[in-house]
Amino acid sequence: MTKSKPVFKTPDEVEAVFYEAFMRCDPDVMAGLWADEGVVCVHPGSRAIIEYRAIVRSWENIFADAHRSEIKYTLLNRALSSDLAVHMVVEEMISSGRVAAVVLATNVYRKFDRGWLMIGHHASLVQNRSANQTLQ
Amino acid sequence: MTKSKPVFKTPDEVEAVFYEAFMRCDPDVMAGLWADEGVVCVHPGSRAIIEYRAIVRSWENIFADAHRSEIKYTLLNRALSSDLAVHMVVEEMISSGRVAAVVLATNVYRKFDRGWLMIGHHASLVQNRSANQTLQ
Repeated sequence: MTKSKPVFKTPDEVEAVFYEAFMRCDPDVMAGLWADEGVVCVHPGSRAIIEYRAIVRSWENIFADAHRSEIKYTLLNRALSSDLAVHMVVEEMISSGRVAAVVLATNVYRKFDRGWLMIGHHASLVQNRSANQTLQ
Repeated sequence: MTKSKPVFKTPDEVEAVFYEAFMRCDPDVMAGLWADEGVVCVHPGSRAIIEYRAIVRSWENIFADAHRSEIKYTLLNRALSSDLAVHMVVEEMISSGRVAAVVLATNVYRKFDRGWLMIGHHASLVQNRSANQTLQ
């Protein structure tokens, strides 16, 4: 684990910083909350990225042309064990005060010696938003 | 837990039966491998379903017009703790001998008193398949 990485005491703490970094378009904070190994990231519609540096680069690319995003995120479901946590999150991407897109994300966190880090982010766009997006 | 549910000793065992049920379009086997509570299922492009009966109905709908699907599935990444497992799986949907679609699935399994069951399936279509889908 890189020494400079921050220490997160809970999965929720990593998640809050993840969405803060996402909204602030901050690649350095984003790089600090991912584990170095055993990681996987899927951006909407994309293939899986399974290497730390490639994941960091993908976020740098996403942030390159943006200064700030507004995202309202809601935890829909969580599964927790002693050293692994899985969260299903609804991400509402806000643009000009309205919901421009709804994304579902499965976020996975792992507890290491120093604390919790993100090891997985699988995001997909909800294509039919006409109905309630949380229950069928 | 419903008494009639089968006993799975490992996450891999649930996963094998999940893809068998998916390929055979068997809603009863599918219904038997999901936990009753704390579950979430996202079909490609869809919203999240977070209730057992609704998840089973969604698979019945998917299977209603099909008799058999051919899926080649490959485990790309796994995270395992004592009672929680997360698998990232590449699903290649085969039609007439060729790959018609590539789907990424995050499958989540939980260990209960009687054994492992599925608690999460988040699937998304890979929209750009021109490049290698596993590494960026």
